[in-house]
Amino acid sequence: MEPGGKAARFSSGWAAKALPQRLMLLLLTLLSGRGLHVVAAASSSGAAAEDSSAMEELATEKEAEESHRQDSVSLLTFILLLTLTILTIWLFKHRRVRFLHETGLAMIYGLIVGVILRYGTPATSGHDKSLSCTQEDRAFSTLLVNVSGKFFEYTLKGEISPGKINSVEQNDMLRKVTFDPEVFFNILLPPIIFHAGYSLKKRHFFRNLGSILAYAFLGTAVSCFIIGNLMYGVVKLMKMVGQLSDKFYYTDCLFFGAIISATDPVTVLAIFNELHADVDLYALLFGESVLNDAVAIVLSSSIVAYQPAGLNTHTFDAAAFFKSVGIFLGIFSGSFTMGAVTGVVTALVTKFTKLHCFPLLETALFFLMSWSTFLLAEACGFTGVVAVLFCGITQAHYTYNNLSVESRSRTKQLFEVLHFLAENFIFSYMGLALFTFQKHVFSPIFIIGAFVAIFLGRAAHIYPLSFFLNLGRRHKIGWNFQQMMMFSGLRGAMAFALAIRDTASYARQMMFTTTLLIVFFTVWIIGGGTTPMLSWLNIRIGVDPDQDPPPNNDSFQVLQGDGPDSAGGNRTKQESAWLFRLWYSFDHNYLKPILTHSGPPLTTTLPAWCGLLAHCLTSPQVYDASNLGRVKYVPRESSPEIWELRALGENQEPLREEDSDFILTEGDLTLTYGDSTVTANGSSGSHTASTSLEGGRKTKSSSEEVLEQDLGVGDQKISSRGTRLVFPLEDNA
Amino acid sequence: MEPGGKAARFSSGWAAKALPQRLMLLLLTLLSGRGLHVVAAASSSGAAAEDSSAMEELATEKEAEESHRQDSVSLLTFILLLTLTILTIWLFKHRRVRFLHETGLAMIYGLIVGVILRYGTPATSGHDKSLSCTQEDRAFSTLLVNVSGKFFEYTLKGEISPGKINSVEQNDMLRKVTFDPEVFFNILLPPIIFHAGYSLKKRHFFRNLGSILAYAFLGTAVSCFIIGNLMYGVVKLMKMVGQLSDKFYYTDCLFFGAIISATDPVTVLAIFNELHADVDLYALLFGESVLNDAVAIVLSSSIVAYQPAGLNTHTFDAAAFFKSVGIFLGIFSGSFTMGAVTGVVTALVTKFTKLHCFPLLETALFFLMSWSTFLLAEACGFTGVVAVLFCGITQAHYTYNNLSVESRSRTKQLFEVLHFLAENFIFSYMGLALFTFQKHVFSPIFIIGAFVAIFLGRAAHIYPLSFFLNLGRRHKIGWNFQQMMMFSGLRGAMAFALAIRDTASYARQMMFTTTLLIVFFTVWIIGGGTTPMLSWLNIRIGVDPDQDPPPNNDSFQVLQGDGPDSAGGNRTKQESAWLFRLWYSFDHNYLKPILTHSGPPLTTTLPAWCGLLAHCLTSPQVYDASNLGRVKYVPRESSPEIWELRALGENQEPLREEDSDFILTEGDLTLTYGDSTVTANGSSGSHTASTSLEGGRKTKSSSEEVLEQDLGVGDQKISSRGTRLVFPLEDNA
Repeated sequence: MEPGGKAARFSSGWAAKALPQRLMLLLLTLLSGRGLHVVAAASSSGAAAEDSSAMEELATEKEAEESHRQDSVSLLTFILLLTLTILTIWLFKHRRVRFLHETGLAMIYGLIVGVILRYGTPATSGHDKSLSCTQEDRAFSTLLVNVSGKFFEYTLKGEISPGKINSVEQNDMLRKVTFDPEVFFNILLPPIIFHAGYSLKKRHFFRNLGSILAYAFLGTAVSCFIIGNLMYGVVKLMKMVGQLSDKFYYTDCLFFGAIISATDPVTVLAIFNELHADVDLYALLFGESVLNDAVAIVLSSSIVAYQPAGLNTHTFDAAAFFKSVGIFLGIFSGSFTMGAVTGVVTALVTKFTKLHCFPLLETALFFLMSWSTFLLAEACGFTGVVAVLFCGITQAHYTYNNLSVESRSRTKQLFEVLHFLAENFIFSYMGLALFTFQKHVFSPIFIIGAFVAIFLGRAAHIYPLSFFLNLGRRHKIGWNFQQMMMFSGLRGAMAFALAIRDTASYARQMMFTTTLLIVFFTVWIIGGGTTPMLSWLNIRIGVDPDQDPPPNNDSFQVLQGDGPDSAGGNRTKQESAWLFRLWYSFDHNYLKPILTHSGPPLTTTLPAWCGLLAHCLTSPQVYDASNLGRVKYVPRESSPEIWELRALGENQEPLREEDSDFILTEGDLTLTYGDSTVTANGSSGSHTASTSLEGGRKTKSSSEEVLEQDLGVGDQKISSRGTRLVFPLEDNA
Repeated sequence: MEPGGKAARFSSGWAAKALPQRLMLLLLTLLSGRGLHVVAAASSSGAAAEDSSAMEELATEKEAEESHRQDSVSLLTFILLLTLTILTIWLFKHRRVRFLHETGLAMIYGLIVGVILRYGTPATSGHDKSLSCTQEDRAFSTLLVNVSGKFFEYTLKGEISPGKINSVEQNDMLRKVTFDPEVFFNILLPPIIFHAGYSLKKRHFFRNLGSILAYAFLGTAVSCFIIGNLMYGVVKLMKMVGQLSDKFYYTDCLFFGAIISATDPVTVLAIFNELHADVDLYALLFGESVLNDAVAIVLSSSIVAYQPAGLNTHTFDAAAFFKSVGIFLGIFSGSFTMGAVTGVVTALVTKFTKLHCFPLLETALFFLMSWSTFLLAEACGFTGVVAVLFCGITQAHYTYNNLSVESRSRTKQLFEVLHFLAENFIFSYMGLALFTFQKHVFSPIFIIGAFVAIFLGRAAHIYPLSFFLNLGRRHKIGWNFQQMMMFSGLRGAMAFALAIRDTASYARQMMFTTTLLIVFFTVWIIGGGTTPMLSWLNIRIGVDPDQDPPPNNDSFQVLQGDGPDSAGGNRTKQESAWLFRLWYSFDHNYLKPILTHSGPPLTTTLPAWCGLLAHCLTSPQVYDASNLGRVKYVPRESSPEIWELRALGENQEPLREEDSDFILTEGDLTLTYGDSTVTANGSSGSHTASTSLEGGRKTKSSSEEVLEQDLGVGDQKISSRGTRLVFPLEDNA
């Protein structure tokens, strides 16, 4: 028999009989970079198939079939886990159990299955087809192997430490359930992050934007450095007591600080949502966690990029430090721009085509454009995940308004399902990884140190920043809010994804193990403790953000917390808000009219010389309203840079527009509760009409309603500054 | 410098700086089995990073970056293509252009981009890192390479024919856009097929089930053998004139017959939908094409499995033939069972949990269960795609009824978007492949022969079968319908996916090229000719299947076509329908009550001794209705094996249930138009209440309505057999 016979046999048997098996292989290749050892040699010629022994073929086919079956079983394991999680979540929601969140549950199921896989499956020796060929000088990414005249192509999979050569295939099942870490970054994180941006409660987010940015940027940086330095101390201690068996540099510690600074209070926020806890606290926590994920990603890659010029790569070098800072700023702003630009392009496309007549096309376009953000950012060397976040925010702010009603719910629901599946998959995987991951390094000192460090890091992040923010904030972040934010420093999917990306070195393995344990304990303990904590801290629950706040202004009291100078708010407001005011008027007067169908016509806000352009860019719908003579846009008296809609005729009231999510006028900062919330299943829009108390006068309107009102449709009357406005309230019920 | 330095450098540089690049790599690995030559060696130890030259590192990084950029660009190409297609489709729909369908358009754009890529990009020589090591005896799936003490793991990618060694990396960009064929089978086809099953118009499908099964099974087999034999003749001819440069066996011809017999009249059906063409013709075409995809897959793998015992594998061998038939039956019935079982399990889970309170969980569960069908079937050695089809049908028939209203639209929309994206992706890829695929074998004789063969094969499939079916059918398939079915024999995604799976041999490459051309021409020419053909054949359009048929029964005339014995229908009906009647009564009396919330209580249909079980399995909602004393289930007079719902009191009318999609009583076969349709965007349910003409009496009701009616809610009256029924018709408007 020819020496090359078996290989040829394998390929041909493969092509011939194992049709269904081949289907599976690729799917698994997709998900498991490590799981697949038998790769089909699909290019064997049919002619070579004739001379072979049936026995060998059978054996090879059996092997391929076996491998294929294991692949299917490993994927089925995860589907089973997710299905179980879904059913149990339902039971929990049904019984109103709040001490364990779905993500915590997914981890528990993952842990159980991990134990079973680890101790319940036999350690198969594996069909070791390995072969050494030792005459090479260096490793190439592609290898051509000449086997008696036939050429086979091999690709480099990775280096194997010499000690592990014999255990490479020790337990196939454990290998199969261990996915390629990049899957988390490329497949699972983007929908989670996009959904976070897309489902942002815009009003409350923008109202607290300054604080959120401070917490996310400064806070994360502070937390990263505090944790990094504390951990360096711990590492020094470990060296002294001889607990450290390999190198652990200062940059490693900083890297650990960066990855562990990505908070993910998904559990807390789910409970906030369910209990309708305070919306501002929600906005602070949610906004911070969304943005600090982005900061943590970019921070960690900047730390990795910190490369001093000399040979000693682990001392401080000012040039390299500033280079890292530059990289941080470059990557962050680049990713931000990329995301915003694709969002804007999508908004323009949806505005200027009548795509909204075909919701399927619209949804598909929306999905493709959002995905292309990720690819574009990656193609330009930026961070796709960060770009996707800002794309989500832009899409929600502009594009969403141009979509048809059906597409709005379709896109929300599509990303909601993707987000749900991805998130629970990651958490199941975390549970599984504790037992199936084969390179754990458990170091008790490091773990205890890390717990202490993240506690101190979180404290150094929240309390000083809150103090400084309160100096400038009109509505102080109360002591109880600070405590709650301190408490909500859970670590989740992002920390895990960052930790698992590189587990090659001893230090990284120790970090990975520690991160996993931190995620477990914060999710379980903090998740379970949220409800008691809320009541212990006296944080208002049961607030329906779509309703008026109670007339006695207790919400105001709570939000003010212990802050003493709530009366002097007007003084600080102007200073803190000028930048934001600038942005708002720009957005309101130019961006919204250009990108959506709302806002004042550009013909009124742009200078006269660009009249034609302004006319082309303004949506006809805006003209329709203006031309009917019912409403007109005029500069607001209090802040003339903002053009606002007014009804003509006897009542010259400024009218709130449907999309005015973050109008900043006096007195409405705390008392505006008109935005909609993301409900437990997240499927809400920001398009319920606003109801707000503005400095004592009650206005409930939108531009459409005003039109209806003037046409005599409305029938309910609300007293308002001496005049009577008649609005149809059915739409708002 | 150490010899292993560069490899270590590569890995470490990789891990260190190319963070964003690594993100992309995996995504591309997912989609392009061929596109990726540089695989990260993620396991380099941090310690080894210290001794290196910066220049080498830089070069490697540049290379990785370049490869990464190309990956992103190639994916972006497809996204751009899809986006362009969507925008143009919108324009076409907007302008009511019908001569070019979106799939045809996607192909044209693909073609254009293919030409640009082929002739517009420079043929990069590629950074050839290949290396020969010639001392091997055989090819292994894994290779361990010892590079100066470091071990690297390589995996087998495939065999390369000796002539192509130098051209392996000839044009990176062309390679990158050439995806792994299995992607089509594992990622893109399942959602398309599932959607087909899930969006099936049940009533019209089941009404024509016998004919559809005959066309799909017998027809496809006939077509496969006719085409196979004709092509064998063509191949013989080519041999004679010396046009055949390699082997081409009879089994290859049969294989070609199988893959090219999978029709895909997506263009025709889209136009049918838009023009509201005859629903029965739609059902025949749609049902046939859905099922014949499944038949073609299994048929092609059975032909591949045809292995005679002797050495000469290309002669006829009765044993092997029957083995192939056995394999066909085994795979088909196994896949069918697998799909039906997961559907039933999902139905039970959604029935017995109150998951419908949480649409997100419900949708996620539905998605996971449907996906697990694919994996389960693959794990058991069946065909995942076929299983997914029957899973879709089962889900639509049972599970759909248990879902909450929100989940119904969510699941429909989710799979609709997936289907839309996958389908257009495949068609864009086809356009691209004509120029970028590097192994085309254009053989004019074979191509012309194939066009003639598919025409003859389609004719031999449609006309004789229709003749025999008309012998048994009460409602003949008219001559114009037969012509239209003949005309609608387009080839599409399935034929392409089957053809691209194996393009290793000369014969397969020729088949692939021919299939591609057949798809092009049938989609463009037949797609463009559908509207003229419809009017030329006098096929009724503008039928709204949700409305009553016109009173003068012209639909009946058309459906009868030229059939002479339409009066003798009653004679043949009983014979042809007995099997179906049996199934219907079983489904109605046992399956529906067990799996959904509708149907008669099992306590009445099951024998008394299984009372407790029956009680547990019956939905409380059914009891609620019965216990109110308003309705009761009694055996139908005309066919006592079917229990039906009757209102108590003065009007003892049999009531149509909401889900009675295919009740078979006399006279209602042609005249029942009460089912809903899948509209242009497919988001309809089967839950608009039925309006039907049953043998002259008009009944419009559902069990819920009857309850409402008795409670005095209704206000509209319909005269019915002397009594007056009062129904609330708001719900049906």
